[in-house]
This record gives sequence, structure tokens and C-alpha cells, in this order.
Amino acid sequence: MPPDQSAALVVLDLAGIFVFAISGALVAVRKDLDAFGVLVLAGTTGLGGGFLRDVLIGATPPAALADWRYLLVPVAAGLVGFVYHPVLGRIEQSITVLDAFGLALFCVAGSLKAVDYGLGPLPAALLGVVTGIGGGMIRDVLTGRIPVVLHGELYATPALAGGLVVVLGYEAGLPHVPVAALGFAVCLVWRLLAIWRHWSAPLPSGPASV
Amino acid sequence: MPPDQSAALVVLDLAGIFVFAISGALVAVRKDLDAFGVLVLAGTTGLGGGFLRDVLIGATPPAALADWRYLLVPVAAGLVGFVYHPVLGRIEQSITVLDAFGLALFCVAGSLKAVDYGLGPLPAALLGVVTGIGGGMIRDVLTGRIPVVLHGELYATPALAGGLVVVLGYEAGLPHVPVAALGFAVCLVWRLLAIWRHWSAPLPSGPASV
Amino acid sequence: MPPDQSAALVVLDLAGIFVFAISGALVAVRKDLDAFGVLVLAGTTGLGGGFLRDVLIGATPPAALADWRYLLVPVAAGLVGFVYHPVLGRIEQSITVLDAFGLALFCVAGSLKAVDYGLGPLPAALLGVVTGIGGGMIRDVLTGRIPVVLHGELYATPALAGGLVVVLGYEAGLPHVPVAALGFAVCLVWRLLAIWRHWSAPLPSGPASV
Repeated sequence: MPPDQSAALVVLDLAGIFVFAISGALVAVRKDLDAFGVLVLAGTTGLGGGFLRDVLIGATPPAALADWRYLLVPVAAGLVGFVYHPVLGRIEQSITVLDAFGLALFCVAGSLKAVDYGLGPLPAALLGVVTGIGGGMIRDVLTGRIPVVLHGELYATPALAGGLVVVLGYEAGLPHVPVAALGFAVCLVWRLLAIWRHWSAPLPSGPASV
Repeated sequence: MPPDQSAALVVLDLAGIFVFAISGALVAVRKDLDAFGVLVLAGTTGLGGGFLRDVLIGATPPAALADWRYLLVPVAAGLVGFVYHPVLGRIEQSITVLDAFGLALFCVAGSLKAVDYGLGPLPAALLGVVTGIGGGMIRDVLTGRIPVVLHGELYATPALAGGLVVVLGYEAGLPHVPVAALGFAVCLVWRLLAIWRHWSAPLPSGPASV
Repeated sequence: MPPDQSAALVVLDLAGIFVFAISGALVAVRKDLDAFGVLVLAGTTGLGGGFLRDVLIGATPPAALADWRYLLVPVAAGLVGFVYHPVLGRIEQSITVLDAFGLALFCVAGSLKAVDYGLGPLPAALLGVVTGIGGGMIRDVLTGRIPVVLHGELYATPALAGGLVVVLGYEAGLPHVPVAALGFAVCLVWRLLAIWRHWSAPLPSGPASV
């Protein structure tokens, strides 16, 4: 990959981590955590999905532990969230839109990394989903909530679709950059439509047995 | 191992995953999760114990990520649970009995895999327990409950006993198949007796200090 | 390292695990867990931080699974906690002081191990913190609490300081034993002062947006 393209990818990756980490910091503030708690939530939300993926595919230590920029970004996001949470809370709808960019980026990057480590198409797409939703799930478990991705708006399905586009295009031998761009677009557009139209995954029908 | 035997083991393994995944799907329905949440709970409950074991012993990527059958089984279980939860909820006592088979199978298979990766008898038996109870613990943490295995009916002790039988027989150089069958039987019978007689592990005596 | 020194380190390490495991057992008793639950909480609290560190840096299987002494210590602590919880609950302030020794030890040992596995100074110090606080975080998540380290007294900051002292001294080529002792002392004294003076990390200012 040409250096310029690679540098662009790192910038995109760091931007995704930053947005995810901001969402973690905002949840931490709402749960009355202290400054350290805000930083931990920012870090685990921003980096947790990638950590889970890397541990599962055996890519240890995770990239974020080998490159200090990946650690400073969530720290910066945590500090921003700690100080500016009243402002950020008011523009949370905008953050949700930015978060969709992070999700699209992570599902593509996560799927590609899993393919590089020799996984088949279906597991690789699944690890793209893990990369995209893992950080938010850890955030919710640490703050005593059932992960919102399991019962809220449509979030993981677009990530799975994006990941599948990427790995199937990769398997088919298509050129990588356009395929990655298409997977990114599929996930992003679907997620933005879900936000706009309040789409959610179907619920089980009938009352649950006790 | 002759191909027929090996195929039988895979079928047993997949059956264990299916039963565990059904229990995850039923918990998800009760917690009002959506279709994606039901699938995630089915997947983590069915595969989580094996994932924990494989990550701890360094057997990455876990088998379930290298063989698509291991991914399709929990998806199928999740869909079955999503659609047929009213029926499944009514026959949950039967599912509990099937779950005992899954537990016995997982404690034997988990212990043997840990021995194969060079662990000593005690850690290997412990990893058999992790394989058997890990998925259910993740299921409970994700749905905001204290894992039932920590305070309910006797569940982990039979798994530990089964794992110990297997690793000690293995260490003693006894033939593998009968030893595995004995470990399976010890875990299964003990667990079924615990269900039937409502055995539970002892509780601390006296009031807890505050 | 001379054998005497190495043996001393193992004894210190086991002592730290024991104290952490006692804290896990006491939480388990308060949450009405059974004997198995008490053992699991003792084990995960005593060993969880090291497990997280080892899985993240790729040092699998973790040391505690390769050396039976590391498994017997939390079992012993769990049994002690199960039987003597009324006494231990009354002297919990003393246990908090002992716990500070465990924290100081774990942050130093965890940072050094991460450096040995090739991590840079900042990630290595961070893994020292993970080693020190990871077990307690798992304990709290398993018992349905938001981890106290995220919102209580100052706990992780001293561990980070101790870890930084160690890795920076290591990078600067200073002799290892005095540097480790200094890192240990920095973490311990700061943590004891925090207990004594009820120091806590700063809280976000202003009300959280909803």
C-alpha cells in the first residue's frame, strides 16, 4: 500500500477510536464515575473491540499496545469528555452520526485483519462485527447495563453487512480499495438510515415464558 | 482416532453447543432483547466457554472460528429460540437435562484439549470447568445477572469431578476412550442427581459482615 | 537472578494473590454466593489481573496455569474467606492496607513482565495497572457492581505511578532491583495516603446531561 494511503488509514482508525472513546466518556460521566473511571471507559470503548479481535485471532500484543498513538487518542478523548461533557451531551445526536462512521470503519478494518490472519469469510465478517461492537459492549457491562447493541436500534446488522461485502469481495479477488470502500458505504448508509428512521431488529413475538 | 469416532465427537460437540445456545436464546427472550441480541446470546453461551479456554491456553484462533459448522449451529439455535421460545420455555426442565449432557461433554473435551496443550492435571481439569461454565457466565453477565453457577444448583462441581477423572486417567496412561467415557458419566450422573434432588453447594454460615 | 531473590519474589507474588483473593471471597459472601461461588470469586480476583495481562501480551498459558502453587493459593484464600468471613469482615480496614501491598507488588511485576515481552514504556506501565486492578474489576462485574476502582478512592493512579517509575528506570538502564523497589514504594505510599486521607480522583464538574 502506498505510504499516503496507509497514513490515511491510520488517521481514519484514530478518528474512529476517538469517537467511540467519547461515547464511553459520556456514559462514565452519567454513571458518576471519577476522572480515572472516565479514562478507563474511554479507553475500553475505543480500543476494546480491537483488543477482543486481536486476542481471538492471536494477534498479540494488540496493535494499540505497540503504538503509543493508539493509547493517547482515548486519553485525549477521555479528557475532552471529562471537561466538555455538558456540551457533548447536548450534541449527542451528532456524535451518534460520527459513531456510525466509526462503526463502518471498524467493521471493514476488523474483517480485513481477520482475513489477513487466515480466517474464512464468515468468521472474518463476524470479527468485523466484534471489532465494531465489542468496545461498546464492554462499556455497558462495566457500567452495569445490558449492552444497548442487544436491544436498541439496528447497529450490528449493518456492520455484519459491511464486513461480508469486504470479505466476499476479497475472496473473489476484486481490487481491495474499492471493495473496502463499498463495505464501508454499505455499513454507513444502512446505519444512518437506521438512526434516521428508528429501525430496530425484530423482537420475539408473544410473551416470554417465565 | 478412526474417522468414525472423530465424526461422532464433532456431532456430540455440536449438540452440546446447540443445547447451550438454546439456553442463551431463552434468557435473551426473557430480557426483551431483539433478534440480534438473541443471536449474540446464543453464540456467546454456546461458544464462550471454548473461546475462554482457547484464549487462555493460546490455541488461537479458537476452533469455532476456523470451522463454519461451529458458527452455524448457534445461529440455528438462536433462530429456533427466537421463533419457538414459548414452546421451549414450557419444556425447560427437559432442556436442563439436555444441558447436563452438554456440560459433561464440555468438561471432558475441555480438559483433554488443555492436556494436549501441555497443561498439568489440575489446571487442565480447571479448564474443563471453564469450558463447561464459561458460556453461561458470559450469558449472565451480558444480561445483568450474577452468574447462576455461582449461587444456584450444583453445576460446576460435577464438571470438575469429570475433568479430574479424565486428566488423572490420562496421566496414569489408561486408554483414552474409556477414561473419557468415565469422566463424562461421572459429571453427567452427578449433575442429574443434583437436578433431581435439588443439591446445591454449601452456603457460608452466619450473617455476612457489612 | 540469584535463587534466593527469585524465591522471595514468588513468595511476595503469592502473598499478593492471597490478599486479593480474600477480598474476592468477602464480596462473594456478601452477595450470598455458595461455596463454589466463593472459590470462583477468590480465584478470579486473585488471578484475573495477571490473566488479562498475559492474554493481552500473548504470554499464554498464563503463569498461574503452569504452576500449581498459583492455583492453590486462591483456593486456600477462598476456604479461609468461606469459614472466617465474620472475623475477616471486622478487620477489613487491615485487609485494605494489605491490599495496598498487593497492588504495589502487582503493578511492579506486571510492568516488568510487559517490558520483558517487548512493550514500550507507556503500554507496559498500563499493563501494570491492568495487573493490579483487573482482578477486582472482574470480581465486581461478576457480582453485578460497577467496578469500585472506577468511582471510589484513589487506587489506579498510584499503580500507574509505580509502573511508570519501573519502566522509565528500566529504559534508563538503572539497576533493576532498586528501581523495582522504588516503584513499589511510590505505589504503596501513595495508596496508603489515599486510604488514610480519603483521597479520590476528581469528579466531572456540573450535572451530567441526560
